[in-house]
Amino acid sequence: MIQKFGKTLGLAALALGMSFASTQSMAQDNLEKVMKDRGLTQKDVLAAAKTYVPTGGRDEFITFASGGQSGHVIVYGIPSMRILKYIGVFTPEPWQGYGFDDESKAILAQGKIKGKDITFGDNHHPALSETKGEYDGKYLFINDKANPRIAVIDLADFETKQIVVNPILKSQHGGPFVTPNTDYILSAAQYAAPLTNDFVPLSEFNDKYRGAVTYWKFDKEAGRIDASKSFSVELPPYSQDLSDFGKGPSDGWSFTNSFCTERYIGGIENGRPPFEAGCSQKDTDFIHMINWKKAAKLFEAGKTTEINGHPVIMMETAIAEGILYLIPEPKSPHGMDVSPDGKYFIVAGKLDTHATVYSFEKIQNLIKNKDFAGKDAYGIPILDLQKSIHLQLSVGLGPLHTQYDSKPCTVFTSIYVDSQVTKWNYCEGKIIDKLSIHYNIGHLMTMEGDSVTPKGKYLVSLNKLAIDRFQPVGPLHPQNHQLIDISGEKMELLYDMPIPLGEPHYAVAIAADKLKPHNRYKVGWNSRTDKKSEYRTRPGREKIVRKDGVVHVYGTLIRSHITPEIVEVEEGETVSFHLTNLERAQDQTHGFAINSFNVNLSAEPGKTVSATLVADTPGIYPYYCTEFCSALHLEMQGYLLVRPKGMKASGGKVDEGQTYTTADYNKQVKTNVDTQAVIDSVVAYITSRNFKDFAPVVALVEDATDQLGFAAKAKAKSEEFAAKKDYHNGTLWAQQWFQYQVKAADTGLRAKTYLEEHGAVEVKK
Amino acid sequence: MIQKFGKTLGLAALALGMSFASTQSMAQDNLEKVMKDRGLTQKDVLAAAKTYVPTGGRDEFITFASGGQSGHVIVYGIPSMRILKYIGVFTPEPWQGYGFDDESKAILAQGKIKGKDITFGDNHHPALSETKGEYDGKYLFINDKANPRIAVIDLADFETKQIVVNPILKSQHGGPFVTPNTDYILSAAQYAAPLTNDFVPLSEFNDKYRGAVTYWKFDKEAGRIDASKSFSVELPPYSQDLSDFGKGPSDGWSFTNSFCTERYIGGIENGRPPFEAGCSQKDTDFIHMINWKKAAKLFEAGKTTEINGHPVIMMETAIAEGILYLIPEPKSPHGMDVSPDGKYFIVAGKLDTHATVYSFEKIQNLIKNKDFAGKDAYGIPILDLQKSIHLQLSVGLGPLHTQYDSKPCTVFTSIYVDSQVTKWNYCEGKIIDKLSIHYNIGHLMTMEGDSVTPKGKYLVSLNKLAIDRFQPVGPLHPQNHQLIDISGEKMELLYDMPIPLGEPHYAVAIAADKLKPHNRYKVGWNSRTDKKSEYRTRPGREKIVRKDGVVHVYGTLIRSHITPEIVEVEEGETVSFHLTNLERAQDQTHGFAINSFNVNLSAEPGKTVSATLVADTPGIYPYYCTEFCSALHLEMQGYLLVRPKGMKASGGKVDEGQTYTTADYNKQVKTNVDTQAVIDSVVAYITSRNFKDFAPVVALVEDATDQLGFAAKAKAKSEEFAAKKDYHNGTLWAQQWFQYQVKAADTGLRAKTYLEEHGAVEVKK
Repeated sequence: MIQKFGKTLGLAALALGMSFASTQSMAQDNLEKVMKDRGLTQKDVLAAAKTYVPTGGRDEFITFASGGQSGHVIVYGIPSMRILKYIGVFTPEPWQGYGFDDESKAILAQGKIKGKDITFGDNHHPALSETKGEYDGKYLFINDKANPRIAVIDLADFETKQIVVNPILKSQHGGPFVTPNTDYILSAAQYAAPLTNDFVPLSEFNDKYRGAVTYWKFDKEAGRIDASKSFSVELPPYSQDLSDFGKGPSDGWSFTNSFCTERYIGGIENGRPPFEAGCSQKDTDFIHMINWKKAAKLFEAGKTTEINGHPVIMMETAIAEGILYLIPEPKSPHGMDVSPDGKYFIVAGKLDTHATVYSFEKIQNLIKNKDFAGKDAYGIPILDLQKSIHLQLSVGLGPLHTQYDSKPCTVFTSIYVDSQVTKWNYCEGKIIDKLSIHYNIGHLMTMEGDSVTPKGKYLVSLNKLAIDRFQPVGPLHPQNHQLIDISGEKMELLYDMPIPLGEPHYAVAIAADKLKPHNRYKVGWNSRTDKKSEYRTRPGREKIVRKDGVVHVYGTLIRSHITPEIVEVEEGETVSFHLTNLERAQDQTHGFAINSFNVNLSAEPGKTVSATLVADTPGIYPYYCTEFCSALHLEMQGYLLVRPKGMKASGGKVDEGQTYTTADYNKQVKTNVDTQAVIDSVVAYITSRNFKDFAPVVALVEDATDQLGFAAKAKAKSEEFAAKKDYHNGTLWAQQWFQYQVKAADTGLRAKTYLEEHGAVEVKK
Repeated sequence: MIQKFGKTLGLAALALGMSFASTQSMAQDNLEKVMKDRGLTQKDVLAAAKTYVPTGGRDEFITFASGGQSGHVIVYGIPSMRILKYIGVFTPEPWQGYGFDDESKAILAQGKIKGKDITFGDNHHPALSETKGEYDGKYLFINDKANPRIAVIDLADFETKQIVVNPILKSQHGGPFVTPNTDYILSAAQYAAPLTNDFVPLSEFNDKYRGAVTYWKFDKEAGRIDASKSFSVELPPYSQDLSDFGKGPSDGWSFTNSFCTERYIGGIENGRPPFEAGCSQKDTDFIHMINWKKAAKLFEAGKTTEINGHPVIMMETAIAEGILYLIPEPKSPHGMDVSPDGKYFIVAGKLDTHATVYSFEKIQNLIKNKDFAGKDAYGIPILDLQKSIHLQLSVGLGPLHTQYDSKPCTVFTSIYVDSQVTKWNYCEGKIIDKLSIHYNIGHLMTMEGDSVTPKGKYLVSLNKLAIDRFQPVGPLHPQNHQLIDISGEKMELLYDMPIPLGEPHYAVAIAADKLKPHNRYKVGWNSRTDKKSEYRTRPGREKIVRKDGVVHVYGTLIRSHITPEIVEVEEGETVSFHLTNLERAQDQTHGFAINSFNVNLSAEPGKTVSATLVADTPGIYPYYCTEFCSALHLEMQGYLLVRPKGMKASGGKVDEGQTYTTADYNKQVKTNVDTQAVIDSVVAYITSRNFKDFAPVVALVEDATDQLGFAAKAKAKSEEFAAKKDYHNGTLWAQQWFQYQVKAADTGLRAKTYLEEHGAVEVKK
C-alpha cells in the first residue's frame, strides 16, 4: 500500500516538476527516506528549504551583529545563517593581520586610553549609515561599552578605519545611532562618573557624577568621524541607555532612555542592598529628549564648556535653551525605537509587562504649551507620562526591545522572562501573535528594521542563553540566534544558529544587493588610510634600504615566492618589512609570518602591509606565506638572518644542494612543452566559448594571461642560461617557467569548469 | 490540471505521513511554493533535508578544524555545518577571557619564545587523542607552525591547558600526530635551521642546518605533555612535512614526508631562481621512516645529545642503531596517511598526478634483507621506491591528501589543481568516482578517518579559495568547507560552509556521542590548572586583603550583583581581583570588565578567575558584568575608585539619590506577595508533572530553588529593617527579595516551557 502511494507520489511529483528524489539516485535516496532516517517532520523540511542556500547562491540579507566582549563584528547571511566574516575592530585578530601590521596597529593605537593599549572591546550596537533614512550600505559604526569608543568600518572592504575615544565618559552603552543622513553619530553614557578624569568620592555622586550624550560629526566624504566638530550634552547621573534619532516629523530630536534614575549606589559588601535592588525601586525611569539640531547650533555658537578638551553643552545651558526634556518610562527599560514614519517611539521596561508607545505630536504639544509635570533635581522639565503616550499594551513578562515590520502598525517585541516574541499592532494596541523562543531573548532584529522602510520577511531573535540547544562544548556556551519567518500572519521558527565566538547584543540587517564591496585594492594600497602606501613596491623594484637607523625591506608577494627571499641584518637593527601583494586575481591573498618575532600579516591583492621588529637576538628565522595560495605554497618561504653584533655580513653565499646537467635541462623543457599543449587546449576551449559574458571568467583569464606572461619571462631566462651552457641555472629557470605554467593551468581549469557549469555556449570566430 | 495533481499529491503525502506543507498553513506555504520562490532544485531540497538540524537537535559528528593564522581552533557540527565554538589557543580571545585572566595568561606565557610574548599562532593540524587507535574524545592537540609549539586542549571543558615550545626547531608544520594509545605526540620540522639558536650563514646550510622530528611524551593521567620525557631525532635539512604513526602491524613506526630535499636556497632578489623553482626540481622527495619505539629506548639509554637542554638522537646514532630510513616519494607531497589496518600508507605529490600506496610489509622485508638502493648525503639508507610500493594510480592534477572511508579499500584524495575529489580503490588501484568542488581543495576529512575504524557517511572538502561562492565581504574572503555525502557509490555535494575567521588547514571529526564535556566547574575552580583555586571565595566570605604590596579582592558573582560593589584603592597600588562565579545553573556565565585597565574576564559557573592591574592613575572606573545574565544584568555593576596618592580613604560614604517610606515598603511587599502567587502556580505546574524524568528541568528546578532561598534571606532582612522602622532599607531589601523572585520565575518558566514542549505528563501525588 505504502509502496503504491509512493509510486503515485513519485509520478505526481515528477509531473509537477518537483520530484523530491534526486534524479540520479531516486530509488535509494529520496526525501521520504531522509526524513525517516533523520527524524525530520514536515515542518522541519519546510524550514530547511526556506533557509538552505545552494552552492554559489546568495543570501537575501546580510547581518552585522556586534561581537560583544570578543571586540569583533560578526557578519552573517539570512536566511542561511552562515557566518561570512568576523571583522576585527577593538581586538587584534591575526588572520586579518589586524593589530599585527603597522597600518592597523595605528588604528588600534587611536583607541588607547590614558596611554594604555586596550586589546579588547565590549561592542554592543552596530549601526549602518543612512541616506534619507534608508540604509545606504556604505559604513558601519559600533561602540565599545567598557572603554567608551566608537569605531568606523568601511563596507567597501569590511575593514576598521577609525577608532575614536570618548573624551568625557567612562562607560558608554547606548550607541552608536545615526541621524537619517548620517550627519551625526550618537553615543550615550551608561554608568555615571565625573566627566573630568578626577577622583571624586561617591559621597559627591549627586553633585559631581554625570551622564552625557555625545554627538560625533561624521565626515561622509572622508569616511571618518571629525572629532573637532563633535560635542556632548551633559546629563544627570542617571544611567543612560539605548537611544534613537527621530525621523520625518521627529527629525532633529534624539531620544535616550535610562535606568537607575534613583541614583542608587550599592555596597553589598558593607551590608547595603546591591545596585540591582536600589536601581529598580522606582516605577519609572526617564527618557532624555534632546533637540540635537538646536544643540549643534549652540555648539557652533560656542555655548559650550571644555572638559578634557572636548566641548560640552552643560545642563544649565541645555535647560535654558529649551533643548532638553525628560519623560517618564516604565522602569529598567532597554529598547528605544522610533517608528519608520517618525511619529512614535516605543519603549519597554524589563520589570514591567508593558510596551509603551509615545506620540511625538503629543510631546511636541506639551513642550509648546510648556505643560510640564515638574522638574527633576537638576531642573530639567519633566513631561507627564500619560499625556505623552499614544497607548500602552501588556506584551509579556520582561519586554525588552521592539523592531518594526514592513506591514503598517506592526511590531515585534522581545520578551526576556517569558522567552517569547510578541507580535502586536502599535496603532491599535492589539496582540497579533506570540512565539516561544529558546531561551531568554535579548534584542531582536527585523530586516532594515531601523530604517524608514523595514523590509519584513525575517526576524532574528538574539537569545542570550543556549543551554541545551546544541551539542555541548563545555561550560561556556554559544549564544543562539533564531531565525523566524514573519512573512505570514503567524510567526514560524526556521533555524537555530549558534554564535561560536562573542556575545552579540544587537544586530542590523541590510538587503544584500546594497553591498558592493571591492575584491582587490589598487596596487600598493594602504587600506587603513585609504591612500597609496608610501612603502608600495613594484615588481622588479624590490630593495633593502637602510635609513634613519631602520632597515626598510621593500618587498613583494606573488604566488609562489616572496621577494626578497633572504634578508640579513645585524643584531640590534630595527627591520621594517613592507610587502605589496602583486596579485590581481580575486581571493589570492598572501600571508607573511616570521618565526619568533610575533609577525603575521595578511596582504589581500594590491595591499601593502608593513611589520617592524627589532632584531634583538642573533639566529636564523624562517619566514613564509601563511595563506595556502598555490600548489607550491609551502615553498613560498625565506630566511631572516640576524648575525651577531660586529660580525661581517655573510655576503649572501649559499650552498648548492644539487647541480643540474644538460639532461636535466632537456627533460624539464620537454615537460614544459607538453604542459603548454595542455594549457593551449584549455585556452582553446575557453576562447571558443562566450567567456566574455561571465565576469568571473574574464578575471580568471586575465590572471592566467598574467601567469603565462611570467612563464614567458622565466622561459627566456632559462634559454639565456642554456645558451651560455649554464645548464644548472637553465634547469632551475625552466622549472620556474613550469611553475608559472602550473598556476596558469590551475586558473584556466577553474575558468573552464565555471563555463561548463554556467552553460557557456560555443561562439563562432 | 496542476491544481488537480497538487491535490492528489497532498492526499498521497498525507497518507504517507509526509505532507510537505506545514499542517497549519498548507494552502499558502508549501514546499512547492518555497522551491519556486527560492529557485531550489529537487537536489537542493534533498541536500537541505540532509543537513538541516531542527531546534534542539544534535549533529552526528563534531569537527575540530585548525584556525590557521587566527591561532584558534574551530569546532563545528556535521551535517549542519554550524560553528559551535572558537577555542582560543595561541591567540588571546577576550570573550573567553583567554589571555585576559591571570590563569590563562599563565598558559600563554608558557608559549613565550626567547622571552617574547607571541600573540598568535599559525595552527595547522588538530589531532584527537586515541585509545587502541580509536578516538576517545578526551584531548585535542594542535601545532603552531610559525613558532614551533604544541597546545593541549581538554575536551572536558574545551579549554587550552598547556603550550609547549619546541626547544630546537624554528618552524614546525607536520604535527601533531598521536600514537595509537596517545603515548607520544609527534611534531616535525619544516624549514631547516640550526638546531641550536646560533646564527649560521647559509653557506653552511648542508652541514649545519637540520630538520628533526620531536616525540612529545603525553602524560594521560595529568592530561599534560611531559617535556622531561620527550626527545627528538635529528634529520637532514629536508623540509619535513606531514607525518603519521603506524598502527597494527606498523605500530612502533612513524612516517614523515618532506619537500625540497634538493636543499635549494632561493634568492630571487639576487637573480637566483626562487625557492619554488629549486625546491621542486627533483622527481622525488623522501619519506623519513623512524622506529619510534626503538628511539624511545635509545633515549632512555641516554644515547642522546643535549641541544638547548633537550635530548636529541643524532643522525649518526639513528643510522647506526637502524631506526631511520628514507623512501623516495613523488615530489612535493603533502598528505601522509596510514590505512586503518596499518598495512599501507598513501602519499601524493602535488606536482605529480599519482597517489602512491606503500606496503609496510614490503618495506619491512627490504629493511630485514638490508636491500637498500643507496644512501643519502648524510648516510641514511634509502629504499627503492618501486620495491616499496603496492601500487600507484593517476588520480588527477595536484593530488594532495587522502582520507579513508568506512568501506574496505576505499579512499578519497583531494586534487588541488583540478579542484576535485577522487574516490578510488587503493587495494586494486581503480578510480571509483570524481566530484568537482569549488575551488582549490587542500586537505579533506572523513569521519574519524584517521582512526582504525573510519565512520564513512560524510566527507569535508577544505577548499582554500571561496572566490564567488558567497556574498562578497571585501578583498579578504572566507574559506569554503564543502560537505559531501559519501554514503552512496557516487559522492554528492551537500553544503557550502564559509569559514568566517581563520584558515583551517586540516580538521578531524569525531562521533558527537563520544564527547561528554561538563557544563559547570566545581565551585572555586582554576580551570587552567584543573585544581581548586587558591583564590576561591565562598558566598558571604568576600573580603579585601592587602598582602605583600597587593590589594587582593576576593569577590563573587551571582545574578545580578558583583560582591564587592565598591573597591577603593590608592594610586599606585597593585590590585588583584579574584572572582568566583557562584552560579550552579548551566550557561549562567558572568563576565567582568573594568574601564580603562584592559580587564575582561569570563567566569563560567563555578570558575574562579583573577585579573591583576596597577592602579596608576587616579579616577573613577566603573566595572560591570559583560554577559547578559539576567533581567537586571545592566545593574550588575560596581566602581573601582582610585584616589590620589596620599589622600585619605573616603570611608565608603555614599549619597542617597532617593529615600523610601512606609508606603514604598508596603507597596513593594504587596508586589512580592502577588509575584509569589505566580511563582507558586508555576511550581505547582512543575511538581504536578513528571519533571524528574527531564534532566534539564531538574537542573532548572535546582536553580529556581536556590533563587527562592536567596529571596527568603532578602525577605528576612527586609522584615528586620521594617521591624526597626527603617523603611528605607526595608524597601530596598524588599526590592532585592523581588529581584530573586524574578530570577526564580524566569527559571521556572523555562522549566514549564520545557515540560510543555517535551510531552511531560501529569503525575499523581
